[in-house]
Amino acid sequence: MIKPVMLTEPTFSPHSLNKYASLMTLGNGYMGIRASHEEAYTLQTRGMYLAGLYHRAGKGEINELVNLPDIVGVEITLNGEIFSLTSGAIEHWQRELDFASGELRRTLTWRAPGGARFTIESRRFASAQKLPLFAMEVTITPLDADASIVISTGIDATMTNHGRQHLDETQVRVFGQHLLQGIYTTQDNRSDIAISSYCGVDGDAQRCFTAKERRLLQHNSVQAKAGQRVTLTKMSWIDWTTELHTSYETWGRQSLRHLEACVQQGYDALLAESTANWQEWWQGRRVQVSSSDEADQRALDFALYHLRVMTPEHDERSSIAAKGLTGEGYKGHIFWDTEVFLLPFHLFTEPKTARSLLRYRWHNLPGAREKARRNGWQGALFPWESARSGEEETPEFAAINIRTGLRQKVASAQAEHHLVADIAWAVINYWHATGDMQFMSREGMALLLETAKFWISRAVMVNKRLEIHDVIGPDEYTEHVNNNAFTNYMAGYNVEQALHFARQLGCSDETFIHRAEHFLQHLWRPEVQQDGVLPQDDTFLSKPAIDLSKYKVKAGKQTILLDYSRAEVNEMQILKQADVVMLTYMLPEQFSPQTCLANLRFYEPRTIHDSSLSKAIHGIVAARCGDSAQGYRFWREGAQIDLGDDPHSCDDGIHAAATGAIWLGAIQGFAGVSVRHGELHLDPALPEHWQTLTFPLRWQGIDLQITLNATEIHITSTAQINLWVNGTNVCVQGASVVRYGSFMTSKIGTATTERGDE
Amino acid sequence: MIKPVMLTEPTFSPHSLNKYASLMTLGNGYMGIRASHEEAYTLQTRGMYLAGLYHRAGKGEINELVNLPDIVGVEITLNGEIFSLTSGAIEHWQRELDFASGELRRTLTWRAPGGARFTIESRRFASAQKLPLFAMEVTITPLDADASIVISTGIDATMTNHGRQHLDETQVRVFGQHLLQGIYTTQDNRSDIAISSYCGVDGDAQRCFTAKERRLLQHNSVQAKAGQRVTLTKMSWIDWTTELHTSYETWGRQSLRHLEACVQQGYDALLAESTANWQEWWQGRRVQVSSSDEADQRALDFALYHLRVMTPEHDERSSIAAKGLTGEGYKGHIFWDTEVFLLPFHLFTEPKTARSLLRYRWHNLPGAREKARRNGWQGALFPWESARSGEEETPEFAAINIRTGLRQKVASAQAEHHLVADIAWAVINYWHATGDMQFMSREGMALLLETAKFWISRAVMVNKRLEIHDVIGPDEYTEHVNNNAFTNYMAGYNVEQALHFARQLGCSDETFIHRAEHFLQHLWRPEVQQDGVLPQDDTFLSKPAIDLSKYKVKAGKQTILLDYSRAEVNEMQILKQADVVMLTYMLPEQFSPQTCLANLRFYEPRTIHDSSLSKAIHGIVAARCGDSAQGYRFWREGAQIDLGDDPHSCDDGIHAAATGAIWLGAIQGFAGVSVRHGELHLDPALPEHWQTLTFPLRWQGIDLQITLNATEIHITSTAQINLWVNGTNVCVQGASVVRYGSFMTSKIGTATTERGDE
Repeated sequence: MIKPVMLTEPTFSPHSLNKYASLMTLGNGYMGIRASHEEAYTLQTRGMYLAGLYHRAGKGEINELVNLPDIVGVEITLNGEIFSLTSGAIEHWQRELDFASGELRRTLTWRAPGGARFTIESRRFASAQKLPLFAMEVTITPLDADASIVISTGIDATMTNHGRQHLDETQVRVFGQHLLQGIYTTQDNRSDIAISSYCGVDGDAQRCFTAKERRLLQHNSVQAKAGQRVTLTKMSWIDWTTELHTSYETWGRQSLRHLEACVQQGYDALLAESTANWQEWWQGRRVQVSSSDEADQRALDFALYHLRVMTPEHDERSSIAAKGLTGEGYKGHIFWDTEVFLLPFHLFTEPKTARSLLRYRWHNLPGAREKARRNGWQGALFPWESARSGEEETPEFAAINIRTGLRQKVASAQAEHHLVADIAWAVINYWHATGDMQFMSREGMALLLETAKFWISRAVMVNKRLEIHDVIGPDEYTEHVNNNAFTNYMAGYNVEQALHFARQLGCSDETFIHRAEHFLQHLWRPEVQQDGVLPQDDTFLSKPAIDLSKYKVKAGKQTILLDYSRAEVNEMQILKQADVVMLTYMLPEQFSPQTCLANLRFYEPRTIHDSSLSKAIHGIVAARCGDSAQGYRFWREGAQIDLGDDPHSCDDGIHAAATGAIWLGAIQGFAGVSVRHGELHLDPALPEHWQTLTFPLRWQGIDLQITLNATEIHITSTAQINLWVNGTNVCVQGASVVRYGSFMTSKIGTATTERGDE
Repeated sequence: MIKPVMLTEPTFSPHSLNKYASLMTLGNGYMGIRASHEEAYTLQTRGMYLAGLYHRAGKGEINELVNLPDIVGVEITLNGEIFSLTSGAIEHWQRELDFASGELRRTLTWRAPGGARFTIESRRFASAQKLPLFAMEVTITPLDADASIVISTGIDATMTNHGRQHLDETQVRVFGQHLLQGIYTTQDNRSDIAISSYCGVDGDAQRCFTAKERRLLQHNSVQAKAGQRVTLTKMSWIDWTTELHTSYETWGRQSLRHLEACVQQGYDALLAESTANWQEWWQGRRVQVSSSDEADQRALDFALYHLRVMTPEHDERSSIAAKGLTGEGYKGHIFWDTEVFLLPFHLFTEPKTARSLLRYRWHNLPGAREKARRNGWQGALFPWESARSGEEETPEFAAINIRTGLRQKVASAQAEHHLVADIAWAVINYWHATGDMQFMSREGMALLLETAKFWISRAVMVNKRLEIHDVIGPDEYTEHVNNNAFTNYMAGYNVEQALHFARQLGCSDETFIHRAEHFLQHLWRPEVQQDGVLPQDDTFLSKPAIDLSKYKVKAGKQTILLDYSRAEVNEMQILKQADVVMLTYMLPEQFSPQTCLANLRFYEPRTIHDSSLSKAIHGIVAARCGDSAQGYRFWREGAQIDLGDDPHSCDDGIHAAATGAIWLGAIQGFAGVSVRHGELHLDPALPEHWQTLTFPLRWQGIDLQITLNATEIHITSTAQINLWVNGTNVCVQGASVVRYGSFMTSKIGTATTERGDE
């Protein structure tokens, strides 16, 4: 049995309520439920979200992930005192999220202000097996004397997104003594949500229901003996649909039947079934590290846990939000983060999931075509931020400047076009990892063609070459520049690959082939200078540089903007994240190790790392350049974005991309996994803190289990496979050992080696 | 200087947060601001409402008083600990609402969980002089050691009505170092609200602003010495309009200018100005009682305070909501409560206000005509519940039955038609109190004619008499009956008075005059039986009676509905409030004292008093019948509806009508003020607990000051006036004394007496 590390919350603090509510979010890709406590706190933000369920609350607002009616809250009154950890005293405290089972547990002993002591235990999970199921138990034990206990819980539809209401209350019902149901409809009438809850309190509970002011509640009163355990079991079934083909009554009854079947099974059986599902999942994905710092293993387990719960693999009309399903940051929108930071994990572990995420883009090609058309271009210009429909969801204007009252147009939606090539890049990665020609000939080809056509129309002929003007690269501190290296190279790669597949698949669109050839012949790709530096864009190198150290120590907080306006930042060598470093990460076969290193050395001092995407990529490139010490430093700092000490760093949700980057850093950085010319490479560079690194990898349908240490690689493969280790071609099958330096496989294996030509 | 009693909150309790937030609401008829604490509590409902500002939040919802962005909340962090009275310890506590000035004050000493002690003082008021102004001060003093203090406050637009959002955020701005402004628009685009706040913290505060997730906040950090007082002064100016004729910028600037002028004046000067206004107000209205129970004076001062703050005398398009501006109960709708329970206070103290409230109905005649038309009747059928537009706001269906999933049609809006006659009755009362012929010839006549026409069309000819079928009287436990005595008598009074004024004013509508005469000739008015009992309706007396004592002890909680269905209650002699008793109160000249007494004795045992309107009226009728002991008992119980011990009785707002009834009970009950045949009567019946009762009364433009005791009445009058004391006609001018029994005026007066003919 795989036993990932647990995430623990060391102490109760009103200051970190929302941090842990995000970090410990339960979910299964279908739903995400923040780990708010059962009892209410003024600063605690509750949240339950369903992947793909967005709505716009009013004029001037934007489509956002809907915060659904709450089912976690339980008001507990003990001898007339409302249970809250801000009053009385905590005599024992333990809270942990068990990554092995996805169960969140809390055990505490509370001394009420009146002096009586109670043990309060709770546990809950979102089922990995039955996606709409959320189960919880709360057990209260009076320790010193008999006590009167009142437990109120139900479905609380007073929830909003910070005051923005999305749902109308369509119907609320109670069935029998234990079942509550609320059916809600988004105010645009497009989505219906049915929330059904079973609430059972053991013992001789007196029970009543209230339905008032959008709260449907069951109230239970129990007279408990000292030492008697009083348990609330609550199970909820959450259905939603955009196409209700039956009556609310029939639909509601179906939900109830599912819920009743779960109640029959009971909490423990449901948890066992969900844990088994998790175990199987971990089996094919867990990354194990023996490190001098146990936080490293926790970071990896944390990352993988969230990579699962954020991913709507059940629904190809949804993708992964920037905060997953853990909070309302970025309104739950989908960015390039998915393709670049999250997709690789799925590509190398469960490519079907990667395919589903790419099909999300494919389904949304109409919106992307429309956006290109509206801006005077051809092909597909994917929206910078998207939700369910694939339309551009980026607000037209940024938050108002409260000083001037003016709103600034959001530049990213206007000019941050590299996303188009990033999606094409992900399609190619999928092809390499799977060889899935069925996908390539339909969705893959459509995506490649439409994205390539965009670039072809986007470039302008200047100085007898095709230039790409007025863009923003991943470095958002440098706006509206010409010939951004990242963008031009990625656009070139996009068109080149589209042309390659067009020819391979016998595309009859001669115009495209002709235009693509012309584009590739004339596209200007900024050139590496003598000193090895690739200019970020036409003007970057001519701008003045300043000392950034005071801003770098506060990386992520954008403190530079307190001293300089955005316009001033734009005119200096100040990077949020380094474009060119990112480029060498994404297209490793196009740049020599010397170039990678030169650019890392040049750009990193000019980079504040104010983007949560920055450090991880710098870390990988540093590791690839052989500087695993710097790589490790960056990797650790990246892991700290959510797991670090800042009590508010992830109040509005974890950083999904940074989570993906924890896996990327280990696998692509320290294990040195990369794909070059379609082939799998391992160039390990373990940091000195790590003795071994073990991980599974799926490659073209073959399952590999890889263990690295400072001197050798153990590989177990389900089939014969060719790969490159430190530039040497190796063929492995079954269990093999490859020693660095010797490049001889050990006796137990059947690998053969061949020196690479690179 | 008049010094009304203060209302104090004896102790801090999380259970009574909302009770005191309602009881201590600040306001001025324009705005009402619940007395929530500066610091947040999970169970505390904040609320700021503007008279007449209603909106509907979505499908299936109804128009409701909009809960506006919050300006009261202040987050106070002391040495890193968030100030909250649920943590740490309270070493001193004082909270009081000063009715003399309308200022709410709190002083407390708090020992933080870390041990440091702080004094926290706050005071606030809504200006009686400048209606859009709300001012507050919060002073923090570290007692034992230097402390770091962080104060965050501003405009918080995450507020909703229990999850129902009404406002879009149109514009948020910050000006200079101290001014914040938010402009909000109802989602139906009909109303704009501008909230401007000045926030100033003295000392060397470091300051910054944030605008995020509908919260516009100023954050102040101060390092305070032990003993140093750190004061936040916050002043807010709240404008709203349904007809914005200028740009948001211009409108916002105007608001700011008003606010800046207030800041110039300063808190103390603004309070002095507002207090002077209150003093003048109390001068013409305060009722003073010397009672063996000081709670009686507090109840009277409480009632008068609220009668002022609930009344939008500045705006005749608004009227008084069932909970005033103190909470969201009854959605802020307007019922017959206004005309019957609240108008008399204004009639006898400031008839201009009564006129404004009647003009509210007059403005809304179109909606009332439309409702009559839609139901197949003529004239004006006023909506059972109304808001700003005068349209029927009663939800078509009552709250869903959570057991059956069915919704029942709300019967009141269909059949509780007596409201029409109640409004006519109030018009006549206005005429008697003022002799305002200008009003009568226009608004008064229109109201009388249209209401009379409704009744004429509403009656049906049966058994050669006009009957009124299928109505609900004030007793809502008896639905859909024929010839409800209350309704038939009031309808008769309505048509009779309309006919009288039509003739007096030379109305040329001969058809109406003819039809009214016919109606009055044939209208069936149920007859008093031999035993003196007037049958409530055609069938009531034939229904079985049950013992109601167990329900009567829980009056107001509708516990009868836990044992019997509404249909079952309808078929028994069970009254929510007694119709016939109410009728003898409203039309005293139509019933002999014997009849009044017989009906009180018959109906009271059959009455649960589940309506908050019930006991007060029974008390007045009992006093009029000479039973001042029972009258006092009922009056006290009526006063307890809000002021009693139940910590949740007024969570969603005080009972406006019950508040009006406290005044009614004293003046119409114990002082025995009534108007019969247009003349002013005093029939004092002081309860034995009361030694004297002093009150001002305005009658036909003359100001009277009246003091009663067990033996005599002192009257001071600004002009010669005829009135009836215990059935004897008295003429007074200047200062007079009338002794009961002798009916001789004392030497200091000039009153002459004449034996009445009744």
